[in-house]
Amino acid sequence: MQSAGTACHDQLMPRVSQDHLDARRRQILDGSRSCFARHGYEGATVRRLEEATGLSRGAIFHHFKDKESLFLALAEDDAGRMADVVAEQGLVQVMRNLLDEPRDGTSTPGADWLGTRLEVSRRLRTDTDFRQRWAQRSEQLTAATKARLQWQRDAGNLRDDVDVDVLTAYLELVLEGLVSHLAMGLPADDLGPVLDLVEESVRRHRGL
Amino acid sequence: MQSAGTACHDQLMPRVSQDHLDARRRQILDGSRSCFARHGYEGATVRRLEEATGLSRGAIFHHFKDKESLFLALAEDDAGRMADVVAEQGLVQVMRNLLDEPRDGTSTPGADWLGTRLEVSRRLRTDTDFRQRWAQRSEQLTAATKARLQWQRDAGNLRDDVDVDVLTAYLELVLEGLVSHLAMGLPADDLGPVLDLVEESVRRHRGL
Repeated sequence: MQSAGTACHDQLMPRVSQDHLDARRRQILDGSRSCFARHGYEGATVRRLEEATGLSRGAIFHHFKDKESLFLALAEDDAGRMADVVAEQGLVQVMRNLLDEPRDGTSTPGADWLGTRLEVSRRLRTDTDFRQRWAQRSEQLTAATKARLQWQRDAGNLRDDVDVDVLTAYLELVLEGLVSHLAMGLPADDLGPVLDLVEESVRRHRGL
Repeated sequence: MQSAGTACHDQLMPRVSQDHLDARRRQILDGSRSCFARHGYEGATVRRLEEATGLSRGAIFHHFKDKESLFLALAEDDAGRMADVVAEQGLVQVMRNLLDEPRDGTSTPGADWLGTRLEVSRRLRTDTDFRQRWAQRSEQLTAATKARLQWQRDAGNLRDDVDVDVLTAYLELVLEGLVSHLAMGLPADDLGPVLDLVEESVRRHRGL
């Protein structure tokens, strides 16, 4: 019985450890997200990351090689969650969630990626290396948007006189404008009807 | 006769001087535009501004109190010229001109404001004082866009089921997305059809 118990223990150990590692990784990502959003990339010091995650720098950098890797993992995590919302509800709903996001650094479920997204936009403008590292990671949002639109077209909900690639690029351009608009601190109270117009302009022809 | 001649001279002198001042001011604005676009606000040193304008720092700062004032005058000048294009051809044409703009720091007539616009966007994100100084200057583009749309509506070319304010905010949001897109160095070759879609979505209903 003891050898069987040991074998069982051996089989379980890696799984328990993996669960533990995943949970710790999640704790770091969730804690550092608000830290990056509040202080920006440069302002998110190791000290602040320790406070935000409740973990020591040793624990944090056991899971992520350096701050850059942590930020990229966070951006990738957010892009994946955005892609999930896109797949379920479409990119326009992602934008509506951004509008509903409080501007005070706190976050609401489903829309707490604005801070990360702003940092990604800023670093894409200023950092060529980052641009290359990000390029492959940003494709999943485009792919999710395109898949969603194709599905909507097959269901007869989408206009069929414009290529899905063009509609995807259109929605991504509006998202970029919205992120920039919010980043500049411009009022967003009146943008709900604008998003209605955006949504309607990719739908099946009016009057047909 | 001499007193009459003196009177005439007195009347002409201010006008001649004003022409000269205007020309010199124009020379400084045109020279510094490419300098700001190429090096960014911080990188546009006084030395570089001297080289770009062909004038001494004494001459430059005789016309503009400091670099901030020069940049704001430039941004205002560009916004005025954008507003002129908007009044004549609409905001979508302004965006098409941005797409035709070479990315190498040179400029083409009618679309050489991208560099300034990028700097404005960046400083709006990072500089609260600048945000306040810019607010009043940015209104002329909104006003020109709104006037143009109202004119199009009166001419029966515009959709009439969406408020002109919403259409204005929509076009400005897309412009902001385009500026951000170009600033991030993303490919713009495929955005022509996207702007066709934007233009069509503010026009009179299809099928009616």
